[in-house]
Amino acid sequence: MSGTPSVTPVTVLGLGAMGSALSTAFLDGGHPVTVWNRTPAKAGPLTARGAVAAADPREAVRAADLVVLCVLDYAAAYDTLGAVGDALNGRALVHLTNGTPAQAREFAQWATQRGAHYVDGGIMSTPPMIGDSGSLVLYSGDRTGFDAHRSTLERLGAARWLGSDPGAAALHDIALLSGMYGLFAGHLHAAALIASEGGSVTEFTTELLIPFLERMMVPMKYSSREIDSGEFADQEASIAMQATAFVNIIESTAAQGVDPALLIPMRDLYHRAAAEGRDPSELLAKKAGR
Amino acid sequence: MSGTPSVTPVTVLGLGAMGSALSTAFLDGGHPVTVWNRTPAKAGPLTARGAVAAADPREAVRAADLVVLCVLDYAAAYDTLGAVGDALNGRALVHLTNGTPAQAREFAQWATQRGAHYVDGGIMSTPPMIGDSGSLVLYSGDRTGFDAHRSTLERLGAARWLGSDPGAAALHDIALLSGMYGLFAGHLHAAALIASEGGSVTEFTTELLIPFLERMMVPMKYSSREIDSGEFADQEASIAMQATAFVNIIESTAAQGVDPALLIPMRDLYHRAAAEGRDPSELLAKKAGR
Repeated sequence: MSGTPSVTPVTVLGLGAMGSALSTAFLDGGHPVTVWNRTPAKAGPLTARGAVAAADPREAVRAADLVVLCVLDYAAAYDTLGAVGDALNGRALVHLTNGTPAQAREFAQWATQRGAHYVDGGIMSTPPMIGDSGSLVLYSGDRTGFDAHRSTLERLGAARWLGSDPGAAALHDIALLSGMYGLFAGHLHAAALIASEGGSVTEFTTELLIPFLERMMVPMKYSSREIDSGEFADQEASIAMQATAFVNIIESTAAQGVDPALLIPMRDLYHRAAAEGRDPSELLAKKAGR
Repeated sequence: MSGTPSVTPVTVLGLGAMGSALSTAFLDGGHPVTVWNRTPAKAGPLTARGAVAAADPREAVRAADLVVLCVLDYAAAYDTLGAVGDALNGRALVHLTNGTPAQAREFAQWATQRGAHYVDGGIMSTPPMIGDSGSLVLYSGDRTGFDAHRSTLERLGAARWLGSDPGAAALHDIALLSGMYGLFAGHLHAAALIASEGGSVTEFTTELLIPFLERMMVPMKYSSREIDSGEFADQEASIAMQATAFVNIIESTAAQGVDPALLIPMRDLYHRAAAEGRDPSELLAKKAGR
């Protein structure tokens, strides 16, 4: 497990919970790892495991061809790399700081001007999951930089390439999180209804809700195809019925003493769709440019 | 497939899309079926397949020990059975009209006073799915009535018994639909983000979103156990980080030209949870009476 010359050295800038987990996964894979953090004490547990702590970002960047940056936000990212001079030139910079597609594109331009092969990434895992088989990281931007280090990046989890737009990883990251928060909102609403009568939320979730939601993935696929084609099947009667049934859901929720707020905008979308005789997904997600 | 004396006769009152699908499933199972509908013409396709059309609800009820009622709403339900006199006495009444837990409990009392074994039900399937292996119907109320006709009711799909509270089926029905609409809201939001840049929503949904959401069922189980126990793990740092990241999601969504409305109440819940140092599920779904 010790670093040999055939194993790519990696530099990790930023040692918050996520940066530390990334460093640990590279160390676990036998990579020589150089780390830097604004607060040096954070490097302690990693140097104890064989990582080298650099004195400043420039020294850290110069230690490896693959530089991974994971800090609090884009301001910290510019701050960290602003003083490395020409050190980025020719190196692969994999940027895993949370941000928007627009921020990623702007940063890509900034880093490319300094000679970096810029790869933007979105981590779809929590720190404890990094390195596990279920972990997933999205990447987009400079294909050369990604291809050169794909096997090293796979130490962090499955690596999914999303094309040359450096904003694509952030866009897909935000889209997946949106899907997750919708799922969680539905679960919280449902759980509150069951809990309002003292029922077992665990039993309800495990035995009824999860199998039911798994079946409801099928209509999600149909709806996706409609959004892609821009052609929506005539579901006017069904949508009108759902809009009416939604009144029932909201009123019953309030009658149970549960705040129905999480589903109110969805009810409003169905009511607007019913009033306009259109599909809810057509109203919200009409394909750009159609 | 023809009705024999050993196959239970069934009466179905109400022949909308759902009532007709229920009648068809019973006919497919070889049951003698008597039907009634306010507008007699709806019975045509079913009598052509062997069903008997009754002249009025009383005649229909008297034709079978198992009476299934599926009409537009509770007003129509009272209307339909209000004139059957003592015909309900001793019969199993399975009520599949959409409604609230409170409506179900009130109707159960009304029907029980007339001697019926009252079973309330919630159909978790669309009419075309009735009778398929993936179809599910929830039941609660009079156990004797349910047990006597369980195998007949299983013609409609899997039959799930939820106990003696006649409101339980409606409560679980509404809870499952809430979970489904949350799932769909998350999908619509995510799909709109992908579509805003012209990406393939089908590819995104099939290859990324669905596998991701299937992994996110695990934290839903943890959260359920916390709601049940009333003891929430200290996730203060994680919730604060998610509350901050949510700002990113909403701003990026608006920047893509997509209406972020569907997730605004969920953002607000996380912000409130972060401000109060509590768990979002604790705020929404604290177990009743704790």
